[in-house]
Amino acid sequence: MESLTPREITMLFLALGLLLASARLLGEVARRFNQPAVLGEIFAGILWGPTVLGALAPAWNRALFPHSGGGALAMDGLMTLAITLFLMVAGLEVDLSTIWRQGKTALSVGIAGIVGPFSVGFLGAWFLPGWMGREAHADPFIFALFMATALSISALPVIAKTLMDLNLYRSDLGMLVVAAAVFNDLVGWIIFAIILSMIGTPDRAMSIGQTIGLTLGFTALMLTAARWLIHRVLPWIQAHLSWPGGVLGFALSLTLVCAAFTEWIGIHAIFGAFLAGVALGDSAHLRERTRATIEQFVSFIFAPLFFASIGLKVDFVRQFDLVLVITVIIIATLGKVLGCGLAGRLSGLARREAWALGFGMNARGAMEIILGLLALKYGVIGERLFVALVVMALVTSVMGGPLMQRVLRLKQPRRFTRYLGSRGFINNLNARSRPETISELAQVCARITGLDAADINDGVLVREQLMATGIGHGLAVPHARMRGLEEPVIAVGLSRAGIDFDAPDGAPAHVVFMILTPVHDDGAQLEILADIATTFKDEEVREKSRNVSGLTEFLALVRSGRVG
Amino acid sequence: MESLTPREITMLFLALGLLLASARLLGEVARRFNQPAVLGEIFAGILWGPTVLGALAPAWNRALFPHSGGGALAMDGLMTLAITLFLMVAGLEVDLSTIWRQGKTALSVGIAGIVGPFSVGFLGAWFLPGWMGREAHADPFIFALFMATALSISALPVIAKTLMDLNLYRSDLGMLVVAAAVFNDLVGWIIFAIILSMIGTPDRAMSIGQTIGLTLGFTALMLTAARWLIHRVLPWIQAHLSWPGGVLGFALSLTLVCAAFTEWIGIHAIFGAFLAGVALGDSAHLRERTRATIEQFVSFIFAPLFFASIGLKVDFVRQFDLVLVITVIIIATLGKVLGCGLAGRLSGLARREAWALGFGMNARGAMEIILGLLALKYGVIGERLFVALVVMALVTSVMGGPLMQRVLRLKQPRRFTRYLGSRGFINNLNARSRPETISELAQVCARITGLDAADINDGVLVREQLMATGIGHGLAVPHARMRGLEEPVIAVGLSRAGIDFDAPDGAPAHVVFMILTPVHDDGAQLEILADIATTFKDEEVREKSRNVSGLTEFLALVRSGRVG
Repeated sequence: MESLTPREITMLFLALGLLLASARLLGEVARRFNQPAVLGEIFAGILWGPTVLGALAPAWNRALFPHSGGGALAMDGLMTLAITLFLMVAGLEVDLSTIWRQGKTALSVGIAGIVGPFSVGFLGAWFLPGWMGREAHADPFIFALFMATALSISALPVIAKTLMDLNLYRSDLGMLVVAAAVFNDLVGWIIFAIILSMIGTPDRAMSIGQTIGLTLGFTALMLTAARWLIHRVLPWIQAHLSWPGGVLGFALSLTLVCAAFTEWIGIHAIFGAFLAGVALGDSAHLRERTRATIEQFVSFIFAPLFFASIGLKVDFVRQFDLVLVITVIIIATLGKVLGCGLAGRLSGLARREAWALGFGMNARGAMEIILGLLALKYGVIGERLFVALVVMALVTSVMGGPLMQRVLRLKQPRRFTRYLGSRGFINNLNARSRPETISELAQVCARITGLDAADINDGVLVREQLMATGIGHGLAVPHARMRGLEEPVIAVGLSRAGIDFDAPDGAPAHVVFMILTPVHDDGAQLEILADIATTFKDEEVREKSRNVSGLTEFLALVRSGRVG
Repeated sequence: MESLTPREITMLFLALGLLLASARLLGEVARRFNQPAVLGEIFAGILWGPTVLGALAPAWNRALFPHSGGGALAMDGLMTLAITLFLMVAGLEVDLSTIWRQGKTALSVGIAGIVGPFSVGFLGAWFLPGWMGREAHADPFIFALFMATALSISALPVIAKTLMDLNLYRSDLGMLVVAAAVFNDLVGWIIFAIILSMIGTPDRAMSIGQTIGLTLGFTALMLTAARWLIHRVLPWIQAHLSWPGGVLGFALSLTLVCAAFTEWIGIHAIFGAFLAGVALGDSAHLRERTRATIEQFVSFIFAPLFFASIGLKVDFVRQFDLVLVITVIIIATLGKVLGCGLAGRLSGLARREAWALGFGMNARGAMEIILGLLALKYGVIGERLFVALVVMALVTSVMGGPLMQRVLRLKQPRRFTRYLGSRGFINNLNARSRPETISELAQVCARITGLDAADINDGVLVREQLMATGIGHGLAVPHARMRGLEEPVIAVGLSRAGIDFDAPDGAPAHVVFMILTPVHDDGAQLEILADIATTFKDEEVREKSRNVSGLTEFLALVRSGRVG
């Protein structure tokens, strides 16, 4: 039996480890700058790929990421699995009822999202073949058809990731974008399948008609009968098999078999996985924890690996042709944004939402690259155009998030940790009573803000006399609105002995937050109080927070306690 | 760039999906019969492999599990990743303090576990080469050395899985077995590395001396400095990176890099992963939920896939030689069980524990097969002996769990769901008061047990007057010991309106359990009450259990609520 050599295994694992570490790290950096994590992840791949490492130390680049042999094939298999599982998770998040509600709008946006860029792309490639980078030997009609399709297909995974990063995925607008993108993709891939059959690729198991018929039939089946069946089967699995092994095994094997099916009928494996995710996620019987286990592992391990692998595929410097890149970006963006935006407006969306829809749909990414790779393989396009398509895919993907964020005027939700510095953390309160505690924390806040300690003390006490701020579970949140503050300030004091804050459950407070907010900022106090309450709902956070050794450990605990 | 063809992807995904589904299913069946899940998982592989599917439909077997080409290499890479991650999880569970405490015993058991089977194996292979299946052209000394080593190496992953299945992993005995097996494995692999260098394999990056030195140095480093560093870095990651992505990414990239390192120095990748797991798991800063996410995904997805893949590797019927198999099993078991058992006795273990130790260490499994595969590849052994080694590995692995279970007289903990049948489930109680509820449930229990309803009613009421059985959170557990019962009986009634059971929190009971236990079985009542209390600690279980539509959904909820 053919297997990997020790050297191939060494390099494969080393490559995966380095890729994952750097993708996660740069993903975090991107998020710190309010960019989607996917940008940092792709950039990590560019660093390790031919563009940077390949230019500086080509031997290392080749050794880590070989282009042929067992290591390359194993990596390709893993990355295909990664993108497939990522699409399954994206499918899990789709709420079908929202899509049905958005049905008509989604359909018209989906159609406009194809017709717009398809016509622009076809006309451009037909009349300006030089500008669009047609190779001398390429068939003009097939080339124009390919460019038209390539510009029409949206990148469902990138769109999904962008929407998740912006917390828009479950919103109506997010679902509309996804619904339109799904429709868009299905049609786009069918057109692409037709093109492939015109070129006459090997390895096709069936005719185009069969592919189209099976695609539509399979989609219909998954969204009706399979969905119903899964909803019936899940409780039985949870009742009779071990947990969560039964459900996890079922969900993943179903996904893999569906992926194999769609790959077999000639569209990509990710479609089956996506539809399996939709059918699974729609059942209320899939418990939150099972969902979380799958989502966390896939979103934080498989997705960064896949997106980093995109950066590995090309040399972004040597094959870079600025004019071609700009031409492709403009043509792609014009067709897509105008087409989708107009369709959105005509369907009754507000102006800002219609623009956001257009920018969202404009993201290409992985799909574009897969398509480009196939076209390159079959000689329809050259390396230069391939790079331009990849750059266009990256730019449109990266633009999508920030443009949506700006046009929708989204604000990041404020977490209380943002206003908590090392000077505001008292590891062990000296105070033993409520007034002593408030006075001790007021002095800390005075040092941070420059306000008068007595003023703070009075403000908080007045509020405290209105109603005690012990909220139970060992937590107290004395607070006040203060004149002269520009932004909220929080101090935290821990008390091993506990201080009576007259909580409803009678328990003494071990963690006391003093929260001062500006008078003019109405929302801040509520947001911060709600955030603290949510964070400390977690029993583990409550128990452990009393015994942390310092601010770093405290922050580690409360930040990690938010998710899952 | 070389990549998988659509056909290869189709077959790879289909194979993974079928393998996972059947491995999980047969694993559950094995557990139902009180066997370790790993037996069912390997059996699933035998069904899909050359033994069954290969005999019935060889074309299908070849298509699904090709022996060469991209699909085979991608599958091999995935399976290597799977076993590597599984060993990382096994490492996470290791509690170093216990190992240090077991130090001396672990060392002597580890040494005896090598010296015993090594001498028996060497002498057997040297003096009875025919019985041991030596090929005509093989070098007698190298063959004897190989057999001696092959019989000495324990299968850490199988042992770990068996111990986890028996809930013994975190026990002192479990840690002793693991500590001895780790020591055993390290020495065994170093000996095997020496043998490989004697055969003169290609692809070795360094000399044996270097391998040994680096192995020892790396182990020491991971268990001291790296462990300390990880403990310092984890809080920082949780404080500054997103959760759980930061920790997950860190844990997995560290594992992959360590795995690459040990593979590079000439021992297997799994050692690095195991040591990374040990170093990570030892930090109290690794939160339970992060642990659970990794463990669940790996134990329920990667482990079943890997163990199933073992069954795929050989035709267990055609290459089966009964005499050879029995000879190998006897020699392997004699050396290992006697050696380890004696060492355990001499170190002061009780007789039953010493036997359990021997049976635990006797499990071979994956290691044996990897070793056998390499020996087969380099022509040291033939296919017949390979099969015998595999069967020996399976038999010793499968024997390990049940023998340990028997010799330690382990009982399965009793769950209340075992005594709850469809006849004992009332979806909507008619009763509105405590006495009415008890009477309604007593009638249900009477129908199930054949006892007199009035007797049951009286017994439960007497107990109820002693002290009310409303235990809060909407739960009540009226109960009694009944003469004439052979085993416990439970009835459940749901009440949307709620019934006052005088709970400490004052909340009316929405879920009422009536629990009848035999007079002679003292433990049953306490075990069942404790199990119910533990199960309903989960808020989600409490909330959802009131509104289930029937017993199946109720069981699904309470079973799944136990873990995580």
